[in-house]
Amino acid sequence: MKAEIGARNCLYPMPTTLVGALVEGKPNYITIAHVGIMDPGSVSLGMNKMHFTNVGIGANGTFSVNIPSVKMVEETDYCGLVSGKNLDKAGLFKTFFCKLRTAPMIEECPINMECRLTRTVDFPSHDIFIGEVIETCCDEGVLTDGFVDLAKVDPILFTMNDRSYWKLGGRFAKAWSIGNKLKDRK
Amino acid sequence: MKAEIGARNCLYPMPTTLVGALVEGKPNYITIAHVGIMDPGSVSLGMNKMHFTNVGIGANGTFSVNIPSVKMVEETDYCGLVSGKNLDKAGLFKTFFCKLRTAPMIEECPINMECRLTRTVDFPSHDIFIGEVIETCCDEGVLTDGFVDLAKVDPILFTMNDRSYWKLGGRFAKAWSIGNKLKDRK
Repeated sequence: MKAEIGARNCLYPMPTTLVGALVEGKPNYITIAHVGIMDPGSVSLGMNKMHFTNVGIGANGTFSVNIPSVKMVEETDYCGLVSGKNLDKAGLFKTFFCKLRTAPMIEECPINMECRLTRTVDFPSHDIFIGEVIETCCDEGVLTDGFVDLAKVDPILFTMNDRSYWKLGGRFAKAWSIGNKLKDRK
Repeated sequence: MKAEIGARNCLYPMPTTLVGALVEGKPNYITIAHVGIMDPGSVSLGMNKMHFTNVGIGANGTFSVNIPSVKMVEETDYCGLVSGKNLDKAGLFKTFFCKLRTAPMIEECPINMECRLTRTVDFPSHDIFIGEVIETCCDEGVLTDGFVDLAKVDPILFTMNDRSYWKLGGRFAKAWSIGNKLKDRK
Protein backbone atom coordinates (compact mmCIF):
# COMPACT_ATOMS: atom_id res chain seq x y z
CA MET A 1 0.00 0.00 0.00
CA LYS A 2 1.44 3.37 -1.05
CA ALA A 3 1.29 6.41 1.21
CA GLU A 4 1.46 9.94 -0.25
CA ILE A 5 3.78 11.84 2.07
CA GLY A 6 4.00 15.23 0.31
CA ALA A 7 6.88 16.63 -1.71
CA ARG A 8 9.68 15.07 0.33
CA ASN A 9 13.09 14.63 -1.19
CA CYS A 10 14.12 11.04 -0.48
CA LEU A 11 17.18 10.84 -2.74
CA TYR A 12 19.36 9.57 0.08
CA PRO A 13 21.82 8.61 1.37
CA MET A 14 24.29 11.12 -0.04
CA PRO A 15 28.02 11.18 0.67
CA THR A 16 28.93 13.76 3.28
CA THR A 17 31.75 16.00 2.08
CA LEU A 18 33.88 18.83 3.38
CA VAL A 19 34.04 21.51 0.70
CA GLY A 20 37.14 23.67 0.72
CA ALA A 21 37.67 27.15 -0.67
CA LEU A 22 39.85 30.16 -0.07
CA VAL A 23 37.74 32.94 1.38
CA GLU A 24 39.41 36.31 1.71
CA GLY A 25 42.70 34.50 1.14
CA LYS A 26 42.25 31.94 3.92
CA PRO A 27 41.23 28.26 3.72
CA ASN A 28 37.71 27.50 4.86
CA TYR A 29 35.82 24.22 5.03
CA ILE A 30 32.10 23.54 5.14
CA THR A 31 30.06 20.34 5.43
CA ILE A 32 27.93 19.67 2.35
CA ALA A 33 25.93 16.52 1.61
CA HIS A 34 23.61 17.98 -1.01
CA VAL A 35 25.97 17.02 -3.78
CA GLY A 36 25.68 15.31 -7.13
CA ILE A 37 27.35 13.89 -10.20
CA MET A 38 26.63 15.62 -13.51
CA ASP A 39 28.60 13.98 -16.29
CA PRO A 40 31.23 11.46 -15.14
CA GLY A 41 33.92 14.14 -14.69
CA SER A 42 31.83 16.80 -12.96
CA VAL A 43 30.26 17.25 -9.55
CA SER A 44 27.69 19.64 -8.10
CA LEU A 45 27.30 21.30 -4.71
CA GLY A 46 23.94 22.64 -3.54
CA MET A 47 24.93 25.45 -1.17
CA ASN A 48 22.67 27.86 0.64
CA LYS A 49 23.55 31.42 -0.35
CA MET A 50 24.04 32.41 3.28
CA HIS A 51 27.23 30.36 3.52
CA PHE A 52 30.54 32.20 3.86
CA THR A 53 32.23 29.72 1.50
CA ASN A 54 30.09 30.62 -1.53
CA VAL A 55 31.84 33.97 -1.90
CA GLY A 56 35.24 32.28 -2.10
CA ILE A 57 34.13 29.71 -4.68
CA GLY A 58 32.71 32.48 -6.87
CA ALA A 59 35.78 34.69 -6.49
CA ASN A 60 38.41 32.02 -7.20
CA GLY A 61 36.48 29.76 -9.55
CA THR A 62 37.84 26.74 -7.70
CA PHE A 63 36.91 24.50 -4.79
CA SER A 64 37.80 21.14 -3.31
CA VAL A 65 35.64 18.19 -2.31
CA ASN A 66 37.11 16.21 0.57
CA ILE A 67 35.61 12.89 1.69
CA PRO A 68 35.94 12.38 5.46
CA SER A 69 35.96 8.98 7.17
CA VAL A 70 33.56 7.85 9.88
CA LYS A 71 36.26 8.51 12.49
CA MET A 72 36.13 12.21 11.51
CA VAL A 73 32.40 12.55 12.18
CA GLU A 74 32.72 15.05 15.04
CA GLU A 75 34.89 17.44 13.01
CA THR A 76 32.70 16.91 9.95
CA ASP A 77 29.47 17.72 11.75
CA TYR A 78 31.14 20.65 13.50
CA CYS A 79 32.04 22.24 10.14
CA GLY A 80 28.30 22.34 9.38
CA LEU A 81 27.40 23.84 12.74
CA VAL A 82 29.63 26.91 12.76
CA SER A 83 30.36 29.56 10.14
CA GLY A 84 33.77 30.58 8.87
CA LYS A 85 32.51 34.14 9.28
CA ASN A 86 33.02 33.81 13.01
CA LEU A 87 35.47 30.96 13.49
CA ASP A 88 38.59 29.66 11.78
CA LYS A 89 37.59 26.06 10.98
CA ALA A 90 40.73 25.40 8.93
CA GLY A 91 42.72 25.15 12.17
CA LEU A 92 41.06 21.76 12.78
CA PHE A 93 42.91 20.23 9.85
CA LYS A 94 46.20 20.21 7.99
CA THR A 95 45.64 22.03 4.66
CA PHE A 96 47.47 21.11 1.46
CA PHE A 97 47.28 22.16 -2.19
CA CYS A 98 47.92 20.17 -5.35
CA LYS A 99 47.52 21.48 -8.94
CA LEU A 100 45.14 24.37 -8.29
CA ARG A 101 46.58 27.03 -6.01
CA THR A 102 43.22 28.21 -4.67
CA ALA A 103 41.51 24.93 -3.73
CA PRO A 104 42.65 24.07 -0.18
CA MET A 105 42.33 20.39 0.72
CA ILE A 106 42.23 18.46 3.99
CA GLU A 107 45.15 16.11 4.60
CA GLU A 108 43.17 14.01 7.10
CA CYS A 109 40.45 13.16 4.56
CA PRO A 110 41.30 9.99 2.61
CA ILE A 111 39.99 11.44 -0.68
CA ASN A 112 40.46 14.96 -2.04
CA MET A 113 39.23 16.25 -5.37
CA GLU A 114 40.24 19.67 -6.63
CA CYS A 115 37.70 21.20 -8.97
CA ARG A 116 37.43 24.09 -11.38
CA LEU A 117 34.06 25.86 -11.31
CA THR A 118 32.48 25.57 -14.75
CA ARG A 119 28.88 26.72 -14.13
CA THR A 120 26.74 28.14 -11.38
CA VAL A 121 23.01 27.40 -11.45
CA ASP A 122 20.99 29.99 -9.58
CA PHE A 123 18.20 28.79 -7.27
CA PRO A 124 16.21 31.19 -5.07
CA SER A 125 18.10 30.37 -1.87
CA HIS A 126 20.94 28.19 -3.20
CA ASP A 127 23.95 28.47 -5.47
CA ILE A 128 24.52 25.22 -7.34
CA PHE A 129 28.24 25.13 -8.05
CA ILE A 130 29.24 22.73 -10.81
CA GLY A 131 32.89 21.85 -11.07
CA GLU A 132 35.13 19.73 -13.24
CA VAL A 133 37.44 17.41 -11.30
CA ILE A 134 40.98 18.49 -12.18
CA GLU A 135 43.00 16.15 -9.96
CA THR A 136 42.22 13.60 -7.28
CA CYS A 137 44.49 12.85 -4.36
CA CYS A 138 43.98 9.96 -1.97
CA ASP A 139 45.66 8.19 0.87
CA GLU A 140 47.65 5.29 -0.55
CA GLY A 141 46.03 3.13 2.09
CA VAL A 142 42.56 3.37 0.49
CA LEU A 143 43.67 1.93 -2.85
CA THR A 144 43.02 -1.70 -3.77
CA ASP A 145 44.60 -2.73 -7.10
CA GLY A 146 44.84 0.94 -8.05
CA PHE A 147 41.16 1.67 -7.40
CA VAL A 148 39.74 3.78 -4.63
CA ASP A 149 38.15 1.22 -2.32
CA LEU A 150 35.17 2.73 -0.52
CA ALA A 151 35.33 0.03 2.14
CA LYS A 152 38.73 1.42 3.13
CA VAL A 153 37.56 5.04 2.86
CA ASP A 154 34.71 4.36 5.33
CA PRO A 155 32.66 7.39 4.21
CA ILE A 156 29.95 9.17 6.19
CA LEU A 157 26.57 8.86 4.47
CA PHE A 158 23.84 11.37 5.19
CA THR A 159 20.05 11.25 5.25
CA MET A 160 17.93 14.36 5.73
CA ASN A 161 14.75 12.43 6.63
CA ASP A 162 16.03 11.62 10.09
CA ARG A 163 19.05 13.98 10.06
CA SER A 164 21.44 11.08 10.56
CA TYR A 165 24.82 9.76 9.53
CA TRP A 166 25.18 6.18 8.31
CA LYS A 167 28.00 3.83 7.47
CA LEU A 168 28.48 2.14 4.14
CA GLY A 169 27.54 -1.54 4.18
CA GLY A 170 29.02 -4.37 2.12
CA ARG A 171 29.63 -4.69 -1.62
CA PHE A 172 27.19 -7.32 -2.90
CA ALA A 173 27.01 -7.27 -6.71
CA LYS A 174 28.74 -6.07 -9.86
CA ALA A 175 27.10 -3.31 -11.89
CA TRP A 176 26.53 -3.84 -15.63
CA SER A 177 26.75 -7.52 -14.79
CA ILE A 178 24.22 -9.00 -12.36
CA GLY A 179 21.35 -7.92 -14.65
CA ASN A 180 22.70 -10.16 -17.40
CA LYS A 181 20.99 -13.11 -15.74
CA LEU A 182 17.66 -11.47 -16.44
CA LYS A 183 18.77 -10.47 -19.94
CA ASP A 184 19.59 -14.09 -20.70
CA ARG A 185 16.17 -15.21 -19.50
CA LYS A 186 14.33 -12.66 -21.71
CA MET B 1 51.10 9.64 2.09
CA LYS B 2 48.91 11.08 -0.67
CA ALA B 3 48.82 9.56 -4.15
CA GLU B 4 47.79 11.67 -7.18
CA ILE B 5 45.53 9.40 -9.20
CA GLY B 6 44.41 11.73 -12.01
CA ALA B 7 41.04 13.41 -12.44
CA ARG B 8 38.93 10.60 -11.01
CA ASN B 9 35.46 11.33 -9.73
CA CYS B 10 35.25 9.71 -6.29
CA LEU B 11 31.98 11.27 -5.11
CA TYR B 12 30.52 7.88 -4.23
CA PRO B 13 28.51 5.99 -3.23
CA MET B 14 25.43 7.39 -4.93
CA PRO B 15 21.90 6.02 -4.59
CA THR B 16 20.92 3.87 -7.56
CA THR B 17 17.59 4.95 -9.01
CA LEU B 18 15.18 3.88 -11.70
CA VAL B 19 14.13 6.98 -13.60
CA GLY B 20 10.71 6.81 -15.24
CA ALA B 21 9.33 8.77 -18.18
CA LEU B 22 6.74 8.39 -20.88
CA VAL B 23 8.49 7.97 -24.21
CA GLU B 24 6.27 8.02 -27.28
CA GLY B 25 3.35 7.60 -24.91
CA LYS B 26 4.68 4.49 -23.16
CA PRO B 27 6.32 4.10 -19.73
CA ASN B 28 10.05 3.52 -19.81
CA TYR B 29 12.53 3.03 -16.96
CA ILE B 30 16.29 3.48 -16.91
CA THR B 31 18.92 2.93 -14.21
CA ILE B 32 20.65 6.16 -13.17
CA ALA B 33 23.07 6.60 -10.27
CA HIS B 34 24.66 9.87 -11.40
CA VAL B 35 22.13 11.88 -9.48
CA GLY B 36 22.22 14.79 -7.09
CA ILE B 37 20.42 17.14 -4.76
CA MET B 38 20.29 20.81 -5.76
CA ASP B 39 18.26 22.78 -3.23
CA PRO B 40 16.37 20.66 -0.68
CA GLY B 41 13.32 20.28 -2.96
CA SER B 42 15.10 19.54 -6.24
CA VAL B 43 17.05 16.65 -7.70
CA SER B 44 19.30 16.24 -10.73
CA LEU B 45 19.89 13.40 -13.16
CA GLY B 46 23.06 13.18 -15.23
CA MET B 47 21.94 11.29 -18.33
CA ASN B 48 23.96 10.46 -21.41
CA LYS B 49 22.28 11.99 -24.47
CA MET B 50 22.18 8.61 -26.20
CA HIS B 51 19.49 7.36 -23.80
CA PHE B 52 15.98 6.79 -25.16
CA THR B 53 14.44 8.22 -21.96
CA ASN B 54 15.91 11.72 -22.45
CA VAL B 55 13.52 12.43 -25.32
CA GLY B 56 10.51 11.65 -23.13
CA ILE B 57 11.68 13.81 -20.23
CA GLY B 58 12.22 16.73 -22.58
CA ALA B 59 8.89 16.25 -24.35
CA ASN B 60 6.73 15.89 -21.22
CA GLY B 61 8.66 18.05 -18.79
CA THR B 62 8.19 15.40 -16.11
CA PHE B 63 9.95 12.32 -14.79
CA SER B 64 9.95 10.04 -11.77
CA VAL B 65 12.74 8.89 -9.49
CA ASN B 66 12.12 5.44 -8.04
CA ILE B 67 14.38 3.96 -5.34
CA PRO B 68 14.71 0.19 -5.70
CA SER B 69 15.60 -2.17 -2.83
CA VAL B 70 18.53 -4.56 -2.73
CA LYS B 71 16.18 -7.44 -3.57
CA MET B 72 15.46 -5.70 -6.92
CA VAL B 73 19.12 -5.58 -7.95
CA GLU B 74 18.76 -7.87 -10.99
CA GLU B 75 15.90 -5.85 -12.47
CA THR B 76 17.67 -2.61 -11.58
CA ASP B 77 20.92 -3.56 -13.26
CA TYR B 78 19.02 -4.96 -16.24
CA CYS B 79 17.35 -1.57 -16.83
CA GLY B 80 20.83 -0.12 -17.30
CA LEU B 81 21.93 -2.86 -19.68
CA VAL B 82 19.19 -2.69 -22.30
CA SER B 83 17.58 0.24 -24.12
CA GLY B 84 13.90 1.04 -24.30
CA LYS B 85 14.50 1.61 -28.01
CA ASN B 86 14.64 -2.15 -28.47
CA LEU B 87 12.87 -3.65 -25.47
CA ASP B 88 9.83 -2.86 -23.35
CA LYS B 89 11.37 -2.64 -19.87
CA ALA B 90 8.14 -1.39 -18.29
CA GLY B 91 6.74 -4.93 -18.50
CA LEU B 92 9.07 -5.91 -15.65
CA PHE B 93 7.12 -3.74 -13.20
CA LYS B 94 3.66 -2.57 -12.26
CA THR B 95 3.36 1.08 -13.31
CA PHE B 96 1.28 3.64 -11.41
CA PHE B 97 0.71 7.39 -11.58
CA CYS B 98 0.00 9.90 -8.83
CA LYS B 99 -0.41 13.69 -9.32
CA LEU B 100 1.46 14.12 -12.61
CA ARG B 101 -0.08 12.18 -15.47
CA THR B 102 3.15 11.79 -17.42
CA ALA B 103 5.56 10.52 -14.74
CA PRO B 104 5.15 6.74 -14.59
CA MET B 105 6.29 5.17 -11.31
CA ILE B 106 7.24 1.66 -10.23
CA GLU B 107 4.94 0.03 -7.68
CA GLU B 108 7.63 -2.43 -6.54
CA CYS B 109 10.06 0.36 -5.54
CA PRO B 110 9.53 1.42 -1.91
CA ILE B 111 10.04 5.13 -2.74
CA ASN B 112 8.71 7.06 -5.71
CA MET B 113 9.17 10.77 -6.37
CA GLU B 114 7.35 12.47 -9.21
CA CYS B 115 9.18 15.51 -10.52
CA ARG B 116 8.54 18.47 -12.78
CA LEU B 117 11.48 19.39 -14.99
CA THR B 118 12.56 22.94 -14.15
CA ARG B 119 15.91 23.26 -15.92
CA THR B 120 18.15 21.32 -18.26
CA VAL B 121 21.89 21.93 -18.10
CA ASP B 122 23.66 21.04 -21.32
CA PHE B 123 26.91 19.10 -21.12
CA PRO B 124 28.74 17.85 -24.24
CA SER B 125 27.55 14.25 -23.92
CA HIS B 126 24.99 14.54 -21.09
CA ASP B 127 21.69 16.22 -20.38
CA ILE B 128 21.46 17.25 -16.74
CA PHE B 129 17.77 17.21 -15.92
CA ILE B 130 16.84 19.19 -12.82
CA GLY B 131 13.42 18.58 -11.36
CA GLU B 132 11.32 19.79 -8.48
CA VAL B 133 9.81 17.03 -6.37
CA ILE B 134 6.02 17.42 -6.65
CA GLU B 135 4.84 14.43 -4.64
CA THR B 136 6.47 11.49 -2.93
CA CYS B 137 4.86 8.09 -2.55
CA CYS B 138 6.25 5.32 -0.42
CA ASP B 139 5.37 1.90 0.88
CA GLU B 140 3.78 2.30 4.29
CA GLY B 141 6.16 -0.39 5.51
CA VAL B 142 9.23 1.85 5.12
CA LEU B 143 7.94 4.55 7.46
CA THR B 144 9.12 4.83 11.07
CA ASP B 145 7.26 7.50 13.07
CA GLY B 146 6.20 9.13 9.80
CA PHE B 147 9.74 9.36 8.40
CA VAL B 148 11.13 7.39 5.51
CA ASP B 149 13.50 4.94 7.19
CA LEU B 150 16.39 4.09 4.87
CA ALA B 151 17.15 0.94 6.86
CA LYS B 152 13.73 -0.36 5.79
CA VAL B 153 14.13 0.86 2.21
CA ASP B 154 17.40 -1.11 1.86
CA PRO B 155 18.64 0.96 -1.10
CA ILE B 156 21.23 -0.06 -3.68
CA LEU B 157 24.31 2.17 -3.49
CA PHE B 158 26.61 2.50 -6.49
CA THR B 159 30.32 3.13 -6.94
CA MET B 160 31.86 3.71 -10.35
CA ASN B 161 35.45 3.06 -9.18
CA ASP B 162 34.89 -0.68 -9.03
CA ARG B 163 31.51 -0.74 -10.85
CA SER B 164 29.81 -2.26 -7.82
CA TYR B 165 26.61 -2.18 -5.80
CA TRP B 166 26.75 -1.81 -2.03
CA LYS B 167 24.32 -2.02 0.86
CA LEU B 168 23.69 0.74 3.34
CA GLY B 169 25.30 0.13 6.73
CA GLY B 170 24.08 1.25 10.12
CA ARG B 171 22.99 4.65 11.41
CA PHE B 172 25.66 5.80 13.87
CA ALA B 173 25.24 9.50 14.69
CA LYS B 174 22.88 12.46 14.53
CA ALA B 175 23.64 15.29 12.11
CA TRP B 176 23.73 18.88 13.42
CA SER B 177 24.34 17.27 16.79
CA ILE B 178 27.43 15.12 17.26
CA GLY B 179 29.67 18.07 16.34
CA ASN B 180 28.36 20.01 19.33
CA LYS B 181 30.84 18.14 21.52
CA LEU B 182 33.65 19.78 19.61
CA LYS B 183 31.86 23.13 19.62
CA ASP B 184 31.62 22.97 23.40
CA ARG B 185 35.34 22.25 23.68
CA LYS B 186 36.32 25.24 21.48
